[in-house]
Amino acid sequence: MTSDTPISPLAPDSFPDLAPLAGVRLAAGACGLKGDSGTDLLLVEMAPDTTVAGVFTTSKTASAPVEWCRKALKGGAAQALIVNSGNANAFTGKAGDGSVERTVAATADVVTCRPSKVFVASTGVIGEPLADDKLTAALPALKESLSDDIWQQAATAIMTTDTYAKGATRTADIGGVTVTLNGIAKGSGMIAPDMATMLSFVFTDAALPADTLQHLLADGTAKSFNSITVDSDTSTSDTLLLFATGSVAVPSSYGADDPQLDGFRAALDDLLLDLAHQVVRDGEGATKFITVKVGGAEDDIAAKRIAFSIANSPLVKTAVAGEDANWGRIVMAVGKAGEKADRDKLTITIGGIRIAEDGLARLDYDEAPVAEHMKGTDIDIDVDVGVARGRATVWTCDLTHGYISINADYRS
Amino acid sequence: MTSDTPISPLAPDSFPDLAPLAGVRLAAGACGLKGDSGTDLLLVEMAPDTTVAGVFTTSKTASAPVEWCRKALKGGAAQALIVNSGNANAFTGKAGDGSVERTVAATADVVTCRPSKVFVASTGVIGEPLADDKLTAALPALKESLSDDIWQQAATAIMTTDTYAKGATRTADIGGVTVTLNGIAKGSGMIAPDMATMLSFVFTDAALPADTLQHLLADGTAKSFNSITVDSDTSTSDTLLLFATGSVAVPSSYGADDPQLDGFRAALDDLLLDLAHQVVRDGEGATKFITVKVGGAEDDIAAKRIAFSIANSPLVKTAVAGEDANWGRIVMAVGKAGEKADRDKLTITIGGIRIAEDGLARLDYDEAPVAEHMKGTDIDIDVDVGVARGRATVWTCDLTHGYISINADYRS
Repeated sequence: MTSDTPISPLAPDSFPDLAPLAGVRLAAGACGLKGDSGTDLLLVEMAPDTTVAGVFTTSKTASAPVEWCRKALKGGAAQALIVNSGNANAFTGKAGDGSVERTVAATADVVTCRPSKVFVASTGVIGEPLADDKLTAALPALKESLSDDIWQQAATAIMTTDTYAKGATRTADIGGVTVTLNGIAKGSGMIAPDMATMLSFVFTDAALPADTLQHLLADGTAKSFNSITVDSDTSTSDTLLLFATGSVAVPSSYGADDPQLDGFRAALDDLLLDLAHQVVRDGEGATKFITVKVGGAEDDIAAKRIAFSIANSPLVKTAVAGEDANWGRIVMAVGKAGEKADRDKLTITIGGIRIAEDGLARLDYDEAPVAEHMKGTDIDIDVDVGVARGRATVWTCDLTHGYISINADYRS
Repeated sequence: MTSDTPISPLAPDSFPDLAPLAGVRLAAGACGLKGDSGTDLLLVEMAPDTTVAGVFTTSKTASAPVEWCRKALKGGAAQALIVNSGNANAFTGKAGDGSVERTVAATADVVTCRPSKVFVASTGVIGEPLADDKLTAALPALKESLSDDIWQQAATAIMTTDTYAKGATRTADIGGVTVTLNGIAKGSGMIAPDMATMLSFVFTDAALPADTLQHLLADGTAKSFNSITVDSDTSTSDTLLLFATGSVAVPSSYGADDPQLDGFRAALDDLLLDLAHQVVRDGEGATKFITVKVGGAEDDIAAKRIAFSIANSPLVKTAVAGEDANWGRIVMAVGKAGEKADRDKLTITIGGIRIAEDGLARLDYDEAPVAEHMKGTDIDIDVDVGVARGRATVWTCDLTHGYISINADYRS
């Protein structure tokens, strides 16, 4: 929560080089919502024909900005995005809806578009009224500073307990035309010391219909942002938006299943996975990045449930923190998932070394490479539950004293 | 895991006084399964007409002893219980089944009863073959030392990472006859450093049919052992058995719904809750005992799901550890439960002080008594989700550095 939290040991070496993207201009600023601890405001202005898709938190107590975005998404059109950090405008009752309305109106005003084309996200403290007057007062100056080349500043402005800014870029070919995707994200716990949540905004210059975008985004999210967990807690504010500015014309108005979009789909999936992994690598207190692969399940849904049962188990996560290849705890987590598993056919592989098979520990396995693997930062756990052919992969981080310090000790 | 773990700060002052119970004799011993760290074997011999009921783990990778007990339970009759600590005989494949069979046969032999009247439980390290020869070799001497007055030693023999022995006793009136219930339990994490699980054995001298016992036990468990959580992890070995020795005749062969059993039912429920609370109070690293009450839910099942979502949330549990009345995290946990909740009618009460209502923090609430409450060891969280009349109560403990130390640091 404090700015002196050290950068995660799992962070990438540097922020990637995100080039300008036709139809997108950005501005980052500080309006005082975070106190004096840095930028807390991001304005994005997009081309008038921009289409949009979105995926949101499944929380039954979703925040006012999430409810606004869900409604605005029905139009499929966007021209502005306004994001603040420092205050989540969540659990703020009717006052929260008012804050969103005023923020949207003021943003529509400076960008000169209909309010229904304005998307809004807030992240930070829960349950305190958002001082939207500070935010709206900063808008005119922000509008003046719009630029196409400040992606890293944009990614920084939406940070809360994040220890590094998160971005990714890809290009793809659609019918012989090269298009670009740029994305930013934030998140470190699902909710941290009254702060943090998962937000991600992805932009492409390709001209694609909103319903096509929505299908692509939903598919890509299932394999990325909906396949990660830090602490099993779900924010009231999780928001993922995909904007297509239409600045680069493509040969046709493609449907989501069109083979001509294969390259774009792969690039989008890859970018989403990259950002999702960056979120896990910034998990609160994380010292290990864990990949959990489950095979042999009844179907893919069962496999994902088992994988999440392993990835969310405090006992598995603390074992990894302790560099212990503790397959007994993995068996326990498989069992508690409630999905079919054949106790006597279970196999467990860690770091590529099979350490249990046919429901038994292999007494002869070579412990040295497994111990070496556990000392590294990237841990691979593969489980086959011996029932059928369902498979899934999810990603998580370990559970350490750092997590407790961030979340329990901050009052001291 | 080590014997020098300090006793939980939430432990009761002393082990209660459990008087002899007609039809039950016990013996505790050490057969070397725990190395040299104390007693690891409990033999209980019961009157020949003893009836039995049981509730077991829902794990899909249940241990060999659990599978045996499930089968034996069909007969509804018991005469012996054999329990070892130090090795869980879980994930031991066909070899594990063999260990159970030999243990049961040897126990049936010394007690002189049919094998189907022998119940068995094991707790401790997972995935290592059980040295059942050590266990069976100790049986004849154990048989010689049977006594009716060693309840505390019995409770101690089944401990693993527990920091104190757990017992409870109650009396009840059935049709003018006074009957007694004695119970012991163990458990500290659902699974701890390859050790720990929840085991509980309850005995009554009343003569009651097995199917009556089974109904009473299932009902009582829902409100006690199935309403607690330490770390959301589920053991492969959880076993709760209720034995009725029949040594005290009661006027009739009662069905579970008979009003004549109201007093017995209340005593049993109260004893189970007492033992379940003792397990939570020994949760790994626990410094606070947390009662979560949820009301206003769609139905009681929805209320229990919401209550467990709060009780299992690492962010709620770390907030309590940090003595922070962090209602924002409680809202988050309500939302992620997936059950109906009215965001704008939610009320949250901590330590009897309503701190949020109508979906908003009460800006005028008196913080001093709440802060004082959070400094105590027993924390009360009450939530009303404003939908209907469903209610539930669950119990948990906080999540502290102690939990991480026990589960991640033990290799160092």
